[in-house]
Amino acid sequence: MTNDNNSLTAHTICAIATPPGMGGIAMVRVSGPEAIDIVASRWRGKPLNDMRSHTVHLGQIIDSQGSLLDQVVLTLYRGPHSFTGEDVIEIACHGSRWIQQQLLATLIDAGCRMATGGEFTRRAVVAGRLDLSQAEAVADVIAAQSQASARLALNQMRGGLSRELAALRERLLHFVALMELELDFSEEDVEFADRTQVTALASEIEQKIAGLAQSFHAGNAIRGGVPVAIVGQTNAGKSTLLNALLHDDRALVSDIHGTTRDVIEDTITMGGTLFRLIDTAGIRHSDDLVETMGIERSFRAMDQAQIVLWVIDGTAALPHIEQFSHQILPHCHDKHLIAVVNKTDLADGQPVTALLNRLQPQTPVVAISAHSEADVARLEHHIVEAAALPQVDDDTVIITNARHYQALRRAHEALQRTLVGLRDGLPGDLVSQDIRQCLHHLGTITGQITTDEILGEIFAHFCVGK
Amino acid sequence: MTNDNNSLTAHTICAIATPPGMGGIAMVRVSGPEAIDIVASRWRGKPLNDMRSHTVHLGQIIDSQGSLLDQVVLTLYRGPHSFTGEDVIEIACHGSRWIQQQLLATLIDAGCRMATGGEFTRRAVVAGRLDLSQAEAVADVIAAQSQASARLALNQMRGGLSRELAALRERLLHFVALMELELDFSEEDVEFADRTQVTALASEIEQKIAGLAQSFHAGNAIRGGVPVAIVGQTNAGKSTLLNALLHDDRALVSDIHGTTRDVIEDTITMGGTLFRLIDTAGIRHSDDLVETMGIERSFRAMDQAQIVLWVIDGTAALPHIEQFSHQILPHCHDKHLIAVVNKTDLADGQPVTALLNRLQPQTPVVAISAHSEADVARLEHHIVEAAALPQVDDDTVIITNARHYQALRRAHEALQRTLVGLRDGLPGDLVSQDIRQCLHHLGTITGQITTDEILGEIFAHFCVGK
Repeated sequence: MTNDNNSLTAHTICAIATPPGMGGIAMVRVSGPEAIDIVASRWRGKPLNDMRSHTVHLGQIIDSQGSLLDQVVLTLYRGPHSFTGEDVIEIACHGSRWIQQQLLATLIDAGCRMATGGEFTRRAVVAGRLDLSQAEAVADVIAAQSQASARLALNQMRGGLSRELAALRERLLHFVALMELELDFSEEDVEFADRTQVTALASEIEQKIAGLAQSFHAGNAIRGGVPVAIVGQTNAGKSTLLNALLHDDRALVSDIHGTTRDVIEDTITMGGTLFRLIDTAGIRHSDDLVETMGIERSFRAMDQAQIVLWVIDGTAALPHIEQFSHQILPHCHDKHLIAVVNKTDLADGQPVTALLNRLQPQTPVVAISAHSEADVARLEHHIVEAAALPQVDDDTVIITNARHYQALRRAHEALQRTLVGLRDGLPGDLVSQDIRQCLHHLGTITGQITTDEILGEIFAHFCVGK
Repeated sequence: MTNDNNSLTAHTICAIATPPGMGGIAMVRVSGPEAIDIVASRWRGKPLNDMRSHTVHLGQIIDSQGSLLDQVVLTLYRGPHSFTGEDVIEIACHGSRWIQQQLLATLIDAGCRMATGGEFTRRAVVAGRLDLSQAEAVADVIAAQSQASARLALNQMRGGLSRELAALRERLLHFVALMELELDFSEEDVEFADRTQVTALASEIEQKIAGLAQSFHAGNAIRGGVPVAIVGQTNAGKSTLLNALLHDDRALVSDIHGTTRDVIEDTITMGGTLFRLIDTAGIRHSDDLVETMGIERSFRAMDQAQIVLWVIDGTAALPHIEQFSHQILPHCHDKHLIAVVNKTDLADGQPVTALLNRLQPQTPVVAISAHSEADVARLEHHIVEAAALPQVDDDTVIITNARHYQALRRAHEALQRTLVGLRDGLPGDLVSQDIRQCLHHLGTITGQITTDEILGEIFAHFCVGK
């Protein structure tokens, strides 16, 4: 850290760490230099000073008037062996809203300050227990909605990205040393570092950083969900298909053309990956203003999607389908298009399939009845395949954070300048300036280089109590 | 317990104990004979068998495929020194909905069963860690909405009621012994137990039980809130007053007569007591059917209230108020009526106050402007006083549970029969039957005498995870 934030950790803070509302148990967390003294003033039970770290104790919390507030289980963590690195006390109370509020109130009366969003995690960063990218991952773990996003966030929290960046940093520092060594001896006209070898090294690092930056596209899809637009003509069965994919009755379904006017969006996990399914209004000429607006939104949804499911009524006339394809296909040239021939329970899908194979030879055509679970499962398989996301295991490093992406992009630009400099035979001191720029940008990711402003912005999005 | 419920504790159970939803931390609780083995099969960290009871450990939970699910803090409680008396493991995970669900799923895959509502507490009862009245109090603590209700529930949970009942039980057993001793020697025509003395003893116990049963009226008000009806003519400022008391904009306020048609109800804690404030439609002759129905509901709300706030427009004509009082007062003969002369910012409240003092000499008259915080605070003081609830401190025993009330009523009836039997000189064996009846009913409260059916009904209202 460039500054130590001492003033930020002078107070002892408290917050409810469990989800808001009523439940069996709720937990209030207290951290800071006076955590033990403050809680001791409201505690009836074994003296806190006699407790070993990492032990739990049954006792009572009393209010400012000395009356029993609740019977609780208290866990003591003595700093630095705690999440924040400070003395931490966690109080598990009965999950009444009233008791939770009173417990906070009595701790505040006794000298605690309410924690701000993410302040516990921020203190962990200040204490050096986590670097900034690990801290950011804590929020991602809490927001995780699929196996893949949870794994990426957990790996980042456990330091996966930090280790990658540390390795890059080490190589860049070695690189700087080489260039600056050249500088030291430049007046003596000694043999310079072998520029070909140095260029190869820079190039290798540049590719590594480019790869990390590139992984953000997959990472973003994994974290936020892969956008899948469900499009097609009215009454092709789009909403029925959405419900079948969601195993739910999310969308209003009827036989009336134009039932769906809003763009309906919902998320679902398939094959461990999160998808954002976007059901759209059926596309046709309409005099209904609201419906027309819905159709425009359909095209926009298609433009933003990574995968487009074009749902085709398998009972429709072939010329009609061919004519309609001219509306759909122009929007799909950089998408994974899957043509879904629906209603195979009502009509043989073969002629339509053949037509589509002719119109779009590269496009997978899946003939289904949306009422058949096996058919829907087969379609799910195609969708997961089309997402083409990398396999995420416990050690996969993929960038999921836009701030990291931006820093990597800037680091990458600095390295490209370095390569140009090397190619143009610039002197070592100029080349090394660009390498130091690259190091700077990488440093902002893990927080070796940061400002209070950046920290404030990052932790503002955290929930209180974490 | 009449039966041991062994079959109920054969399984190891798990549930989320914290409130539902997303938060910093969530807790999953596991209890049962295989708790340690099951969690060990999903745990990466210090071996569970090497852990001391009541200690916390950082580690990882893995899923059925052996992949990392989350980094967690695990607390181990070895039975019988746990809430349920069994081996208990609490796993504090990141509060993502996805992680919470996956954590449950992996524990279920490993052999746990989802806990039913209140099953952890039920096991605590089966293990003799809590009696039934204490277990019921756990749910009351979680539902507590005011200091008074929390204190009563906490005291009951800590055994306050159980101790009172145990003392009564002991005296009743002594009483039975006296009567049955008489029986043993009845054929030898020895001196009987002194019936006057015995009657005095029975009478004393009877009064004690009657007192406990009687406390239910206060207990019920403390737990559910004291009902306060706010009534008066249209445009007297009832909704403005409600908002002022709630410090909120709950009710729609306007200058249009008849703005409030529904009965609006909200709770507020004043002086440590919970009140249910019921705003009602203004009372006037109306041709609007909806409004007329609202006015009927006003009268019904008044009938159910314990306190009636009659809000009077201080700018209204005195004969008009006097005439209207004939509609209000008949509904108030067994209520705590408080006359609130409103709008003192617009008119001198003195003539109206004088009129009311003449009409209802016993009724407190409070002249206020609903816009003055000091005036509203003064009115709050009157309301708290009118509630006339007993002072609740840490050791107060008041019945708050309808099941307990019913059992006490039956116990009381049995004791009254005992007293009649003693007065009529019935033989000891007949008298002792009634005493045993009384003991039986008291026993159902703490659960010495109970059935699976009763238990099932009690715990069905618990939240899962407690």
